[in-house]
Amino acid sequence: MKKQLFFWLLAAGFPAAAQTPTPLTARQGKVKLTFMLAAGQPTYAVTYGTKAVVNASRLGLAFEGGQGFDGPLTLLGSEVKDVDETWQPVWGEVKNIRNHYQQLTVHLRQPAAPGRRLDVVFRVFADGVGFRYELPRQLALGNFVVSDELTEFALPADHQAFWIPGDYDTNEYLYTKSRLSAVDNAQQVKASTEIAVRDAPDAQAVATPLMLKADDGLYVNIHEAAQVDYPAMQLHVDRASHRLTARLVPNAVGSKAFLRAPSRTPWRTIIVSDKAPDILASKLILNLNEPSKLPTTDWIKPMKFVGVWWEMQIGKSDWKYANSADTLDAQGHLIPTGRHGANTANVKRYIDFAAAHHIAGVLVEGWNVGWEDWFGAWKEQVFDFVTPYPDFHVQEIKDYAQSKGVQMIMHNETSGSATSYEQHLDTAYQFMNRFGYPSVKTGYVGRIIPRGEHHDGQWMSNHFVRVAEMAAKHHVTVDMHESVRPTGLSRTYPNWLSGEAGRGNEYNAFSIGSPPEHETIMPFTRFIGGPMDYTPGIFKLQNFEPTGKRSVRTTLAKQLALYVVLYSPLQMAADLPENYEAHPDAFKFIEDVPVDWDDTRIVAAEPGDYITTVRKAKGENEWYLGSITDENARTQPVKLDFLPPGQRFEATIYADAKDADWQKNPASYQITKQVVTSKSTLTLRLAPGGGAAVSFKPVAGK
Amino acid sequence: MKKQLFFWLLAAGFPAAAQTPTPLTARQGKVKLTFMLAAGQPTYAVTYGTKAVVNASRLGLAFEGGQGFDGPLTLLGSEVKDVDETWQPVWGEVKNIRNHYQQLTVHLRQPAAPGRRLDVVFRVFADGVGFRYELPRQLALGNFVVSDELTEFALPADHQAFWIPGDYDTNEYLYTKSRLSAVDNAQQVKASTEIAVRDAPDAQAVATPLMLKADDGLYVNIHEAAQVDYPAMQLHVDRASHRLTARLVPNAVGSKAFLRAPSRTPWRTIIVSDKAPDILASKLILNLNEPSKLPTTDWIKPMKFVGVWWEMQIGKSDWKYANSADTLDAQGHLIPTGRHGANTANVKRYIDFAAAHHIAGVLVEGWNVGWEDWFGAWKEQVFDFVTPYPDFHVQEIKDYAQSKGVQMIMHNETSGSATSYEQHLDTAYQFMNRFGYPSVKTGYVGRIIPRGEHHDGQWMSNHFVRVAEMAAKHHVTVDMHESVRPTGLSRTYPNWLSGEAGRGNEYNAFSIGSPPEHETIMPFTRFIGGPMDYTPGIFKLQNFEPTGKRSVRTTLAKQLALYVVLYSPLQMAADLPENYEAHPDAFKFIEDVPVDWDDTRIVAAEPGDYITTVRKAKGENEWYLGSITDENARTQPVKLDFLPPGQRFEATIYADAKDADWQKNPASYQITKQVVTSKSTLTLRLAPGGGAAVSFKPVAGK
Repeated sequence: MKKQLFFWLLAAGFPAAAQTPTPLTARQGKVKLTFMLAAGQPTYAVTYGTKAVVNASRLGLAFEGGQGFDGPLTLLGSEVKDVDETWQPVWGEVKNIRNHYQQLTVHLRQPAAPGRRLDVVFRVFADGVGFRYELPRQLALGNFVVSDELTEFALPADHQAFWIPGDYDTNEYLYTKSRLSAVDNAQQVKASTEIAVRDAPDAQAVATPLMLKADDGLYVNIHEAAQVDYPAMQLHVDRASHRLTARLVPNAVGSKAFLRAPSRTPWRTIIVSDKAPDILASKLILNLNEPSKLPTTDWIKPMKFVGVWWEMQIGKSDWKYANSADTLDAQGHLIPTGRHGANTANVKRYIDFAAAHHIAGVLVEGWNVGWEDWFGAWKEQVFDFVTPYPDFHVQEIKDYAQSKGVQMIMHNETSGSATSYEQHLDTAYQFMNRFGYPSVKTGYVGRIIPRGEHHDGQWMSNHFVRVAEMAAKHHVTVDMHESVRPTGLSRTYPNWLSGEAGRGNEYNAFSIGSPPEHETIMPFTRFIGGPMDYTPGIFKLQNFEPTGKRSVRTTLAKQLALYVVLYSPLQMAADLPENYEAHPDAFKFIEDVPVDWDDTRIVAAEPGDYITTVRKAKGENEWYLGSITDENARTQPVKLDFLPPGQRFEATIYADAKDADWQKNPASYQITKQVVTSKSTLTLRLAPGGGAAVSFKPVAGK
Repeated sequence: MKKQLFFWLLAAGFPAAAQTPTPLTARQGKVKLTFMLAAGQPTYAVTYGTKAVVNASRLGLAFEGGQGFDGPLTLLGSEVKDVDETWQPVWGEVKNIRNHYQQLTVHLRQPAAPGRRLDVVFRVFADGVGFRYELPRQLALGNFVVSDELTEFALPADHQAFWIPGDYDTNEYLYTKSRLSAVDNAQQVKASTEIAVRDAPDAQAVATPLMLKADDGLYVNIHEAAQVDYPAMQLHVDRASHRLTARLVPNAVGSKAFLRAPSRTPWRTIIVSDKAPDILASKLILNLNEPSKLPTTDWIKPMKFVGVWWEMQIGKSDWKYANSADTLDAQGHLIPTGRHGANTANVKRYIDFAAAHHIAGVLVEGWNVGWEDWFGAWKEQVFDFVTPYPDFHVQEIKDYAQSKGVQMIMHNETSGSATSYEQHLDTAYQFMNRFGYPSVKTGYVGRIIPRGEHHDGQWMSNHFVRVAEMAAKHHVTVDMHESVRPTGLSRTYPNWLSGEAGRGNEYNAFSIGSPPEHETIMPFTRFIGGPMDYTPGIFKLQNFEPTGKRSVRTTLAKQLALYVVLYSPLQMAADLPENYEAHPDAFKFIEDVPVDWDDTRIVAAEPGDYITTVRKAKGENEWYLGSITDENARTQPVKLDFLPPGQRFEATIYADAKDADWQKNPASYQITKQVVTSKSTLTLRLAPGGGAAVSFKPVAGK
């Protein structure tokens, strides 16, 4: 056997004294990346045409115990390569994704003995830049602990920002629109009592995706891609200089990441354009993720679903079966309150509704023992994920759903106890396989166990990937709630269909809710990382709960439009069956609208104001449009030039009625039909807090 | 259905204003327990005949957020009951165990609203007292977090103590004999660099089991029983007053225990006698544990074993296969050093030896990938527990061992990453089932993951129980190394055969080792909680490693005696086959000695000085004796009145030769035989650091 030490080759690859002159550059279209090493300090800058996107900004990683890449570095060399390829996602907004970039790899060395090496890899796309740190295999670096990431984003001006607090445990805040110089999350964090667990020690920290709008017309989005084995990046805002600095969510002992070379960080992403729609259309983050790791994907099915869920959110029924874990009869059995939502008869009602309306799935929350004492005590063993309440008959429900052609969706709430979930994971997924649940919605409401860890730290980042992997092994798709926000990992784990990690429609049920502008911001922020199970489709928008004080602050037509504007391969029809049955004509749009697409066009968009999106159904000659506005009424013209020329389509327009208004008359809608072609133009009238949804189906015989 | 609230019944059981007068007492033999409530402060005291064992000492539990049982309490009532029963352990030192005690239950209430209730349950045995706190099911107490346990042990005088530091992560220190007033662990903790992970923030804290000797002749041992879902108790020593206070090992966020009523703490145990042998013979801790929870136990087999292990400890071979994880050839494969111990040929050599000498098992450490980078970096994913090195052929070894009638023993080193082990547990045990490993030795060398948790905290306490339960599910027996020290849980989980959690023979291989007195202290301390895999049987006691500086500080005969003196249902013959083959006559004792017994008598014992133990083989008319001394030579007479009267036995005496001495001539032994009866007396001559082992077998035909 030839005993050849691979690492010697690597180490020998670069003469120690090489000093390639900087700047080094890479570009694609209008985007240009410049790397500089001045006085040993690596920086990068990004321009878009003649406009500065990011001024010279620091790069680096600091290690515990020193000897990281925070001191002066030397340049060993660099390489540039061009890549242009096209790939097909298992599901998504488009059928084909072009991955076209110029890559600059910069090899750096720490001059202090023993001379550790770091690569910085930049990928420059026509719509932005991604870069990451890579620690190659080397003798001088084995295990290490990241104490800080020094990455900066030096913004050239005091942009408008759409931001939520940089919280270690939640992304469910309302968005604030402010100048960077005005970022201060302290009051909001304190006041947001509708969010169960909050931990945001830095008042000047914001979460990503961070959406920015410059006064010179540039739109900039900062986030990350492929967050694996690493904590989430948040951004500390220096309000005077508009310089953003990476802040990594710490672990239980205050460290950031335990790693071993060879290793690499997630990609730091900057999406940029002078047109807001381009931000929404960007595939930069998906392109920076690894291809699917799953051996097969034919079992992965996007779908719509209804569920025993909204009725608990609005207080009509309960997750729990008894009043408390101590409400026991003489035999030691829980005494039912009679308010338990997940009972067999009620579940069958949802199955019947789904079957009647071609909705593929039925989610049931509160089906399993533990809800009497599930939250707030940082308990580790709360649920075992396999034991139903006495009134939930697993086998009977399985048989009934199968007979109706409906698929059951499992619910695994962990109450934040990730260790407990991992202990039960294999058993839980075997249970799903046995009882016909092809999909699971997970939940992490509560402080995390391992105690001291955070939802958005390295340990949980690995946990979420483990869940996706274990689910895939059992051919189960996943919808993760209260997880870290997505960074495009659904490309690598296409069974990771959707998630929450943002402020969904549910906040309208139990809290002050979200203002009409909310859904016009979400696609520019939370959805930049991937699909969200936003749970649209509420038809009863007011007076749906006992106090009468809560409301969903949109019109009904806007709820329909959200199925197109907010992309997810899992979409819930969240309202109660009886509320849908009161509006069968409007519900037709939800029945029709697909969850997987061949193509997508962003017709018009402005964060915080409006979005109009049109998509082509996968494998079908059908198109669907969604248009939404904030609290202001708007008229939105739409040229139908996306339709194939020379064909006639029947457009069914679900629009706000003339008197519609999110506050005064949200459920007022009108449905009209007209025949159109690619030369037609539709003019949509959106009410305050309103929207419009349109289906385009080919006219038969033409 | 009759809706009857069980907790109302409970709450109604005691009139709120009842004030039973104290003292309340319970007694058994010479032991008397007194409970007092004075000014709302509960205390207890213990006497042995006329002698004070524990003076009036505080009781109580403090909760995070207050409203615990640290303030003044009122007495609701009390009950006394007597229990006398006999049970049979699955394996052990005796066939029958008598559980004979008087129980006093004291019902207390916190007067502050809402009036939470606490029971203190005392069990008084002829050889000591156990007591625990019980939190009954009650409306006023759901989830709670223990911030401190207030239990005290007010010792009446400045006793001699045999102690090790109260360390959150290890019990592998050398014992110090000192007065309580001289306890200070700081220097020892700092200097004990042979122990990988040490964390002992309180210089006046000692671990349990704590062995005490009073000047008035009493022997007292303080420990705990049934440590489940609760951290280990350590003891803070007030050096002036000789008052010991419970200190619970904290978790990652500084709390002690997350619990929910109904709940109960482990038993706090005080074993007492005026004869040292009674301490060793006590079954108090086993009696305080729950009966077996396993549905079947016939698959649980005590056994002796050899293993590929000591050769790594002494530097003859390595656990690792390559020099480092980065020592790769051009194909990316590890480049072997040629020093890997766990190779198929070497393993077969041990199998051959075991088969030839009727040793049931063969342990192999270092068989699986990961040892190049397993320790010191707090890495979570180190081993996967199922991937062998290229030179360890799992199937071939399985087939070979089976053909020889030998059982393989698995090794699962976790490097402290308990989360990773739990992730892989089911897969790892399925692997054992497939490849014929009925037993596993686990290891936790390193800082614990979940990071911030400790080996001896609540989380790991639960982990160890989970491992025992999962192993039982797969019919696997367990030997846990670097776990929390035992508290009798092998009664409840009889597949939990043995453990480490103490300073075993291995320290003689790689460190300054342990002095001759060590093994005379261990049965009074570490072994009070349960069996230890001490790995006795070293025959090559000097010059066994390259430096020639290490030595095992006993004679060879003492190594034999340890198989009787140190009880474990798993006993290793730890030395190399070639070292045994050099002394086949002495090895005959190891071949013969059982690991399961019908009866045990402690002939003579004094902590730190000497122990002589004799045991009857389970189901056989054979007896085995072990006698050990410290650094002083001793003559130990032994009356053979334990032998059945009227029968003749051949005694084979493995004794130190006249010139034997642990320092100068440790391997000098002589083997003699004589015929004896129950009326005979043997006089054993123990060399400095020496011992003697004797087998008694019935003389055929008489």
